[in-house]
Amino acid sequence: MKIIDGGICAANGFKASGLHVGVKTKNKDKKDLALIVSDKECSAAAVYTKNVVKAAPLHVTKDNLKNGKAKVVFANSGNANACAPLGEENARRMCSAVAEELGVCESDVIVASTGVIGQTLPIEIVEGGVKELVSKLSDDGSNDAADAIMTTDLAMKELAVEFEVGGKVCKIGGIAKGSGMIHPNMGTMLAFLTTDCAISSEMIKLALQTATNLSFNRVSVDGDTSTNDMASLMANGLAGNDEIVAQSEDFNIFSEALNAVCIELAKMIAADGEGATHLITCRVGGAKNELEAEEISKSVISSTLTKAAIFGADANWGRVLCAMGYSGVEFVPEKVSISFESDAGRVAVCKNGCGLPFDEGDAKAILTEHDIIIDIDLNAGDAECTCWGCDITYDYIKINGDYRT
Amino acid sequence: MKIIDGGICAANGFKASGLHVGVKTKNKDKKDLALIVSDKECSAAAVYTKNVVKAAPLHVTKDNLKNGKAKVVFANSGNANACAPLGEENARRMCSAVAEELGVCESDVIVASTGVIGQTLPIEIVEGGVKELVSKLSDDGSNDAADAIMTTDLAMKELAVEFEVGGKVCKIGGIAKGSGMIHPNMGTMLAFLTTDCAISSEMIKLALQTATNLSFNRVSVDGDTSTNDMASLMANGLAGNDEIVAQSEDFNIFSEALNAVCIELAKMIAADGEGATHLITCRVGGAKNELEAEEISKSVISSTLTKAAIFGADANWGRVLCAMGYSGVEFVPEKVSISFESDAGRVAVCKNGCGLPFDEGDAKAILTEHDIIIDIDLNAGDAECTCWGCDITYDYIKINGDYRT
Repeated sequence: MKIIDGGICAANGFKASGLHVGVKTKNKDKKDLALIVSDKECSAAAVYTKNVVKAAPLHVTKDNLKNGKAKVVFANSGNANACAPLGEENARRMCSAVAEELGVCESDVIVASTGVIGQTLPIEIVEGGVKELVSKLSDDGSNDAADAIMTTDLAMKELAVEFEVGGKVCKIGGIAKGSGMIHPNMGTMLAFLTTDCAISSEMIKLALQTATNLSFNRVSVDGDTSTNDMASLMANGLAGNDEIVAQSEDFNIFSEALNAVCIELAKMIAADGEGATHLITCRVGGAKNELEAEEISKSVISSTLTKAAIFGADANWGRVLCAMGYSGVEFVPEKVSISFESDAGRVAVCKNGCGLPFDEGDAKAILTEHDIIIDIDLNAGDAECTCWGCDITYDYIKINGDYRT
Repeated sequence: MKIIDGGICAANGFKASGLHVGVKTKNKDKKDLALIVSDKECSAAAVYTKNVVKAAPLHVTKDNLKNGKAKVVFANSGNANACAPLGEENARRMCSAVAEELGVCESDVIVASTGVIGQTLPIEIVEGGVKELVSKLSDDGSNDAADAIMTTDLAMKELAVEFEVGGKVCKIGGIAKGSGMIHPNMGTMLAFLTTDCAISSEMIKLALQTATNLSFNRVSVDGDTSTNDMASLMANGLAGNDEIVAQSEDFNIFSEALNAVCIELAKMIAADGEGATHLITCRVGGAKNELEAEEISKSVISSTLTKAAIFGADANWGRVLCAMGYSGVEFVPEKVSISFESDAGRVAVCKNGCGLPFDEGDAKAILTEHDIIIDIDLNAGDAECTCWGCDITYDYIKINGDYRT
């Protein structure tokens, strides 16, 4: 498996485009419509937020994907179309506008929105842009689509990989947006994935759920799980491999590639959390089982106090141990070891549940790097898990103190 | 029941004192030892953090309270004596130092610590102050003790009430500290309560657990549940009422008074959350049962995004509905109503799960007040619950970006 260029257009038979129409802002530099189209009907699946409050486009997408088929992803930023008047009607109007222009069925459209909750989607503005959006579809439109789904994101999130299934070269590409309201199960997070690997809807569903659990569901920015999250995957089969229809070696190869793409996108989301200045990776090892390791790791990356300490480059491991302690997992504090690690080195700060003497200057240097690893050993078993988060900063407060108005 | 002066010394037979010895800082204005002593042996009980990682003093206090009796509370700030070398030994040395000076049993001492985790308690410094601390005990020492348990708290938290049980005037007083690491079950929160009401240890335990569930466990500052939290209650019986030994009318009167004191202390803790500029009260009504109302209310007051919106006086009710949605409670979003309220008025922002038109200027005026109420109606039943929190601000980040060093 190797990383290649092209994002969601890397796989054969996918085109994409992005456009500014003014859903929220008149600033023409901010694209707000994204389109992804496959030349050929795809097997498709999606996973959705577990929030009880689900945005209208999620309901419509769920409906459209009942047959496991899709050809198009159509998304807007600037308005979440969640808890808003005419939500479902407007989501369906998005589908029909793009379906008509492309000459496909409405039920072939995966539709998504991200932005402010509770305001009516300006559907005429969206519809008014569809013709131009379709006309801009191209093989190198991945950037434009990735750009168009960004809200407070600072960096575009895009990736593609190449691997072989049954002697055929296959590709998986993805774009994502994150930023705030990011928490396991999932955040204001959209991820659209494409592949030319031939694989059935059933198997796509399984692979996507697995990859999501290992990636997007292991990221937290602020503990807030949004109403709009969705990750979708379309597979058009143009790579020409024998269709994957069961759990097999081919499936494992595909699944591993998909996991890798999703994990990298998830890390990009964590690193680009609103206002973030650090990517925090929390590795928990020596656990009795993976689930317990995951719960502890999530508790640490979600701890506001730990996040504030990392922002301050303060080796305050007491907060890490404290966050472990309220994770809901039973463990023996007296067995726990904690180290901080980065490109600047590694410092052990806690052993057997007690503080170790360490050089504050060294620790500060390690924690001043952008990528910080919190390495925890429970010394209670062989299972492990890694989750990702970011620090909490003045800018997070600034961004979120007045986002809506 | 009426509010009276005197804090923990309001009840007959209680004295208190506070002293600076330099546990953490040489600043003599910062008292760091607190002592509360009853003239007479008390029925006593305590509740503790549910964090798996518990500070040493909690283990020692639990041990000392096995017989349901106590005469003394001894607490320090500046060092949590949690995850620190010699933790239990030093907690026991605190008990024996004060017991010897007072001529009581070591097992009569409730011991508590709050401050930095993971550093050895400077026990000699603590011991060195005991003689003077005891000599300062007085009837009006409540202020000094309340002052001494403060860490990053800005305001002293102290309250007393008077009520009648069986024709006798009884009093309950309390002091508390909060600030950061505050979350249901409980935060870095200490609360020490005293009463002259005659009541058995069994009944004290029940009353304290009930009051804690209605107050301290309904407050969140930052979602971090600390290692050191404890609330204790000592009753010396000097009011002369017939001892309360069972659930009775007298018990209900006592319990109501205790609930009121704890709820007021809890609100003081929320209002004085680190860096906070708003006290947020979240009332959830129309629920199927109280537990569901509580879960939803806690989810809202704990939502970082909602807290940031309140800091920005932004009527972003979408974040409120979103936080309700990931509370784990099943409810019908299409039935939900949300209003914001303060001394400046009330504005309805969401009805039947959809946004209402409202005047942004009015909403801003309402949310600019210090005390903000988020009023939610689930329209699904008759149960309700209220929880308290605060906004998240630049100062929270500042305080917690570099607390330890």
